Amino acid sequence: MMSTKAESATDLTIYADRMGRAQAELARQGVDYLMVGISSDLYYLFGYEGHASERLTMLILPQSGKAAVVVPKLESPLLRSREALAGHLIWEETEAPTDLAARFVGDASGKTIAVNDHLYSSFLLKLQSAIPGASWVSANDTLKTLRMIKDAREVELLHEAGRRTDVAWEQFIASPLSGLTELQAMERLVALTREQGLEINFGICASGPNAASPHHNTGERVIQQGDSVVFDWGGSLEGYTSDVTRTLHVGEPDEEFRTVYATVLAANQAALDAVKPGVACQDIDRAARSVISEAGYGDAFLHRLGHGLGLDVHEEPYLVEGNTMPLAAGMVFSDEPGIYLEGRFGIRIEDAVVCTETGGMRLNEATRELVVVG
Amino acid sequence: MMSTKAESATDLTIYADRMGRAQAELARQGVDYLMVGISSDLYYLFGYEGHASERLTMLILPQSGKAAVVVPKLESPLLRSREALAGHLIWEETEAPTDLAARFVGDASGKTIAVNDHLYSSFLLKLQSAIPGASWVSANDTLKTLRMIKDAREVELLHEAGRRTDVAWEQFIASPLSGLTELQAMERLVALTREQGLEINFGICASGPNAASPHHNTGERVIQQGDSVVFDWGGSLEGYTSDVTRTLHVGEPDEEFRTVYATVLAANQAALDAVKPGVACQDIDRAARSVISEAGYGDAFLHRLGHGLGLDVHEEPYLVEGNTMPLAAGMVFSDEPGIYLEGRFGIRIEDAVVCTETGGMRLNEATRELVVVG
Repeated sequence: MMSTKAESATDLTIYADRMGRAQAELARQGVDYLMVGISSDLYYLFGYEGHASERLTMLILPQSGKAAVVVPKLESPLLRSREALAGHLIWEETEAPTDLAARFVGDASGKTIAVNDHLYSSFLLKLQSAIPGASWVSANDTLKTLRMIKDAREVELLHEAGRRTDVAWEQFIASPLSGLTELQAMERLVALTREQGLEINFGICASGPNAASPHHNTGERVIQQGDSVVFDWGGSLEGYTSDVTRTLHVGEPDEEFRTVYATVLAANQAALDAVKPGVACQDIDRAARSVISEAGYGDAFLHRLGHGLGLDVHEEPYLVEGNTMPLAAGMVFSDEPGIYLEGRFGIRIEDAVVCTETGGMRLNEATRELVVVG
Repeated sequence: MMSTKAESATDLTIYADRMGRAQAELARQGVDYLMVGISSDLYYLFGYEGHASERLTMLILPQSGKAAVVVPKLESPLLRSREALAGHLIWEETEAPTDLAARFVGDASGKTIAVNDHLYSSFLLKLQSAIPGASWVSANDTLKTLRMIKDAREVELLHEAGRRTDVAWEQFIASPLSGLTELQAMERLVALTREQGLEINFGICASGPNAASPHHNTGERVIQQGDSVVFDWGGSLEGYTSDVTRTLHVGEPDEEFRTVYATVLAANQAALDAVKPGVACQDIDRAARSVISEAGYGDAFLHRLGHGLGLDVHEEPYLVEGNTMPLAAGMVFSDEPGIYLEGRFGIRIEDAVVCTETGGMRLNEATRELVVVG
């Protein structure tokens, strides 16, 4: 994919600051090295997007001192502007990059090394072999502390992505859907979202009984009168993504559908109302779930309430039973209750929400009233 | 991303056959279990694309006996048609999926478990913790044996993807480029390629001195008279991707450029001519490299000659010095020599090639003659 993320040498202070804060976290957690391959984690820390491949590019951040980056020779020109952040460990096509990492680390007996969650297992297995004696852990505990709390610029990008997604939706629902396949409908919505300058990350269109599967594979089913249709999609701006779900109805719905729709909407609102700093993540899930359970549909709310949102579509914090972590100002996450009635229909209403000092604020505002189309 | 891969319950025999051949490989190599998360490996073996996320979906294939698939509850409906291939180990939102994998495997002391290369490290670390006593290895040795040799249907899909990419290119070069930014030029080529029904996987446009960086990040530089411009892009059909590079010139080139272009083209042809079953991968690289070295540009050919092509843009076999593996009929790979002159210009010419019983055959035929545009 082509990058639409800004890359400017003048921004290096942002990354120097983030790398410094990551080093403080490493010290606090007793981790000796952080290793981060091509991923949103690397982009966050180092401002380099790259593209994940079988050629290893990996930032190595020691608990103190200067970082290094393992990079294939043919991509090293792309990192030249970042040499102040990390020295280059350049490997030729016939070398093993994990050997360069091992030489940089030296004797690792008793050391703890954290690797980013999305690093390919093929690289981790080679690192474990090249650097014996170390303990290997997930870098998530280190990085989530930083990435969960969005700064003002990050919130503004997420908000702008949400606004543009709203515009695409309002244009989309002005036309009838009946007779289109799910794929055709999704293509139309994707095109409108692209026209808003967003890079498309994902899209689900689930119609009729298909909507009862929360992660339905958009397919060739023809949308027809009497269907409910779930659209779950998002696009990103400089890497920061929107994530919205709306459910509409083709032709007039019956009373049961209206009742279930109102229940899901009330659950979405109850979760929003529960958001404020200090509240446990699981309590936001519970706020929505209790509305749905009291209406008698508890077993039909098949998934957690939400997930964090930022450079990744799914990231920390997760709003799920068992997660007692308290919310803090600057966290951004989805609020997406749903009710799924197998063989019949499904309804989900999803917004992105930022936790502010005074409560939750939605980052997208496409209408949540029930939309009926032709 | 939306899937354009065919998913049909009637195709299950293909996957049953592939899983059976994988089990034979496991036995031959003394591997007890194969674990494969969402990836092209899973699609190849099991016909399920899914989408990679923090929720683990993973096929577990024992050396003998029936397979199982770990799947989150909200996605289990998508696998219902595949229950004959693998029993379901369904996990709820508050459960640890790696515990289900551990229970399926049981006591793993002394056992060897292979994991697919692209499995997230976060999952591997949890598996290593949940299944103590096992040796963990890359599944590449098992899976490459199967995936490298394309069957007739796979070659036809790769050929058709190449043909459609050719059509897009011929349309693209009919218009002038001067005045467009790299991003605008790439967007135009991408749109033409999408119109051919291909799903876009990647795209690089590198103009003027930027073309001297083989993996340049397509950006805001304005293409101008006197530039050479490298386009490297591809799109997939039912998951099988094209991968083509062409270099054109804006305005009449000078003699040096023509000479370097002719050298790269001769290297591309020399590699193609060297392809036949039994020849070592490194010898194809050498065939191209010797042409470039004899012309005095050996140091400017910065990368290996090529990579395998199929469901992944980069896969086995790699045409690189040190790879002594012999080619076999059915292997498909790129033939992409290049010369990169820092600060000045770069030229790369890339085709996809299938190794047949009688030699190499290109899968795309967009003109390789030097194209001069306005």
